[in-house]
Amino acid sequence: MAQKLTKRSEDYSKWYNELVVRADLAENSAVRGSMVIKPYGYAIWEKMQAELDRMFKETGHENAYFPLFIPKSFFSREASHVEGFAKECAVVTHYRLKNDDEGKGVVVDPDARLEEELIVRPTSETIIWDTYKNWIQSYRDLPLKINQWANVVRWEMRTRLFLRTAEFLWQEGHTAHASREEAIEEAETMLGIYSEFAENFMAIPVIKGLKTESERFAGAEETYCIEAMMQDGKALQAGTSHFLGQNFAKAFDVKYASKEGKEEYVWATSWGVSTRLMGALVMTHSDDQGLVLPPNLAPYQVVIVPIYKGQEQLDQISEKVNEIQSRLRAKGIRVKFDNRDTHKPGWKFAEYELKGVPLRIAMGPRDMENNTVELARRDTLSKEVVSVDGLEDQVAALLEEIQSNLLNKAKDFRESHSYTSDDWEDFKAKIEAGGFVWAHWDGSSETEEKIKAETKATIRCIPLDQQAEEGKCVYTGAPSKGRVIFAKAY
Amino acid sequence: MAQKLTKRSEDYSKWYNELVVRADLAENSAVRGSMVIKPYGYAIWEKMQAELDRMFKETGHENAYFPLFIPKSFFSREASHVEGFAKECAVVTHYRLKNDDEGKGVVVDPDARLEEELIVRPTSETIIWDTYKNWIQSYRDLPLKINQWANVVRWEMRTRLFLRTAEFLWQEGHTAHASREEAIEEAETMLGIYSEFAENFMAIPVIKGLKTESERFAGAEETYCIEAMMQDGKALQAGTSHFLGQNFAKAFDVKYASKEGKEEYVWATSWGVSTRLMGALVMTHSDDQGLVLPPNLAPYQVVIVPIYKGQEQLDQISEKVNEIQSRLRAKGIRVKFDNRDTHKPGWKFAEYELKGVPLRIAMGPRDMENNTVELARRDTLSKEVVSVDGLEDQVAALLEEIQSNLLNKAKDFRESHSYTSDDWEDFKAKIEAGGFVWAHWDGSSETEEKIKAETKATIRCIPLDQQAEEGKCVYTGAPSKGRVIFAKAY
Ligand SMILES: [Zn+2]
Ligand SMILES: [Zn+2]
Repeated sequence: MAQKLTKRSEDYSKWYNELVVRADLAENSAVRGSMVIKPYGYAIWEKMQAELDRMFKETGHENAYFPLFIPKSFFSREASHVEGFAKECAVVTHYRLKNDDEGKGVVVDPDARLEEELIVRPTSETIIWDTYKNWIQSYRDLPLKINQWANVVRWEMRTRLFLRTAEFLWQEGHTAHASREEAIEEAETMLGIYSEFAENFMAIPVIKGLKTESERFAGAEETYCIEAMMQDGKALQAGTSHFLGQNFAKAFDVKYASKEGKEEYVWATSWGVSTRLMGALVMTHSDDQGLVLPPNLAPYQVVIVPIYKGQEQLDQISEKVNEIQSRLRAKGIRVKFDNRDTHKPGWKFAEYELKGVPLRIAMGPRDMENNTVELARRDTLSKEVVSVDGLEDQVAALLEEIQSNLLNKAKDFRESHSYTSDDWEDFKAKIEAGGFVWAHWDGSSETEEKIKAETKATIRCIPLDQQAEEGKCVYTGAPSKGRVIFAKAY
Repeated sequence: MAQKLTKRSEDYSKWYNELVVRADLAENSAVRGSMVIKPYGYAIWEKMQAELDRMFKETGHENAYFPLFIPKSFFSREASHVEGFAKECAVVTHYRLKNDDEGKGVVVDPDARLEEELIVRPTSETIIWDTYKNWIQSYRDLPLKINQWANVVRWEMRTRLFLRTAEFLWQEGHTAHASREEAIEEAETMLGIYSEFAENFMAIPVIKGLKTESERFAGAEETYCIEAMMQDGKALQAGTSHFLGQNFAKAFDVKYASKEGKEEYVWATSWGVSTRLMGALVMTHSDDQGLVLPPNLAPYQVVIVPIYKGQEQLDQISEKVNEIQSRLRAKGIRVKFDNRDTHKPGWKFAEYELKGVPLRIAMGPRDMENNTVELARRDTLSKEVVSVDGLEDQVAALLEEIQSNLLNKAKDFRESHSYTSDDWEDFKAKIEAGGFVWAHWDGSSETEEKIKAETKATIRCIPLDQQAEEGKCVYTGAPSKGRVIFAKAY
């Protein structure tokens, strides 16, 4: 191992940046703002994809693929969408390079200018609704429930691995419905899937809510979101689901003939999560020793490290380990046996701690004699010597325990950093200290803007699951009917 | 059903274009040369991906993700690569749009010009080797065996769905090795995987071979390929695997310290297959009635259509069908029950024939009485009435039979359209008629070029598995040591 990670308490942001690179999740590339997702990081992303894909398909969605490029004019079609998305984006203007006549290498061929510039998709509503126009004629064609796994590009000036990159990977669902009610139900269903996925699969507790008008997706009538709390008390939006009304149907003229033979505009939703979730994963569970992975997301859940002198001892241990491995695999447990002779056990211990492998099994000559192994938990850093007999059951049970322990730990953290506040000075102090502050708000964008200007806190969401409560806006004192969540955010 | 498909014998090319659209595989988009892969087509592609991904991982490869954009200057680094790839490609020159001052809508912001243009990747050797430079220091870091699933863009003037599109989906493997021998072995291993996948999974027989110098990948020392024969006798290159020598290591200065402590350049391979395989799939198996899918690739392998009058009959049939469905699913068979009341059985029959579902089960009131169903095979268009008892075993066996029947049929077709020729006039006539012509060639690019100019046939490959045979070049009469395969190609 090289030097230690920066501690979270010293510099949380530096800790994050170092950890992402050193745990082999991702790194910056030669292209400003674009990252390379390394094999270990990508393997975690693949686990997320597989589970989400399964959940989407189980709820009747199909995958498809739409073009990377969108004609520039498409962005002008939906008035508010153009404001939100047609600004910072990658513009393709030419389709050919050539060798420079004066030997300057490769240059853009000025004769190969596109008549209409193409935009690298920042999100695909426009090109997809242009396509849906041909797919939807009658109520029989509805609902249309399609998802796309894709890369998207949003030019960003200040980027951070996973959290904010010019290019990122995501899924975007785009559905079409015959009625407002059905579309709203779809948007809420998908929010439920995201929430279930975050909590049960990623062990990240989230709050489901609605965005205020000023934080809404460009072109949406309502934006639903899930918000998670990071270990520095800041909020991270982990997924959004939009009820788009008939905005895109009107912009792209998508109508259907109802059962009664009437022509009606179609109702829409869109919803997405991205590689940003990788950032949420790191910042929710990891510690000063490195990554901590929930067993569901770990590329390998158990690593076995042999402790030996000489080939003969290694052979004996390997034989035993092979047997243990097959018993673990038979239980569906992902296990890796690191028998490389190029690295010492101590180096391997530190390496797998850094990479967040949930359980480490070490086996040496004494263990061979006693029919035991040393079993170490990454989440609690605790160790115990246990018998090889029945090890597979113990490991399976421990993996479940770790998964739920991580969720509970994150819930406890959120609880202990969530506050209510009814007083402006108190509110400011609490925001400054970090965490979620539940406060009354008068419902105006103006007040929201002023609070943001004074505290850097935004309204993360209007929580869906809460009791109505009469109160007074923490800033203006005007009447309010329920609390919203304020926090600084990623 | 709308009107019939154009017959293959009338216009093969038209038949293909119609079939791809009408079977819901893909369609053209608003972006010239870019296609939309529709859900049914994408579900087939997902099956290909899953199987290939499994095969890659089983042979020790990991997935990762590299940037979509490549700095223009990277293309100048590898001399032959720039010739091959830096020509027809999408060039990003700006990173911002703005609202036009004169109300012309959205325009490119001239102030947001990139210092160095970015190229949308046509293939990723350059950006990946630029990354590998930081990942490889010592022999311990080798071999590095990485695959990427991605979209790529190559500007094409004349495009055809799946066969030639500006944007397409593919996988690209990029490996780094300590020795020439190991890299060559990797290139050959991957060719073997492609060949096994094509034959055993897609039921497409292929010939493994080497490309001639003029057909080699830009930057490769050797290009291996698999070549398939379509039903019009033309060849389709279904996959390539390149031994890149040390070309990219030298261009991007990637060296490693050997066990002996010497600095050496790394040896490389790259290999890929793309959504082009969808075109090969269609053109190998399908017929004048529509798509014919090998069971391995069929989104659903069996469709069940009820034939009924009134809700009561449908309820009775549905109950029976539900039981049949669970027995089929328990065998791992993908089955769909189409009980929509918006379409008649005859419409459904035609629809699933067009979409190539391998087996169709129909069940009506008479079947209910007799405990039978009608079972129809898509590949042979034959039908029989069979008992419901043991249906799941019969279906499982039939699916296997269909899978191997399709491969055998395609092999027979290839055999009957493969010729040897030792005479120039005979050669020209055979090329004109269509098929593979095995002929002697003197090994010169000049001769190859002349043959192409006179016949439009190219050397598809120098087959790997063939006996050495002395002979004379069919064009020049100069000596040759073995036959190569000539054909017109997609
Ligand atoms: Zn705290
Ligand atoms: Zn023929």
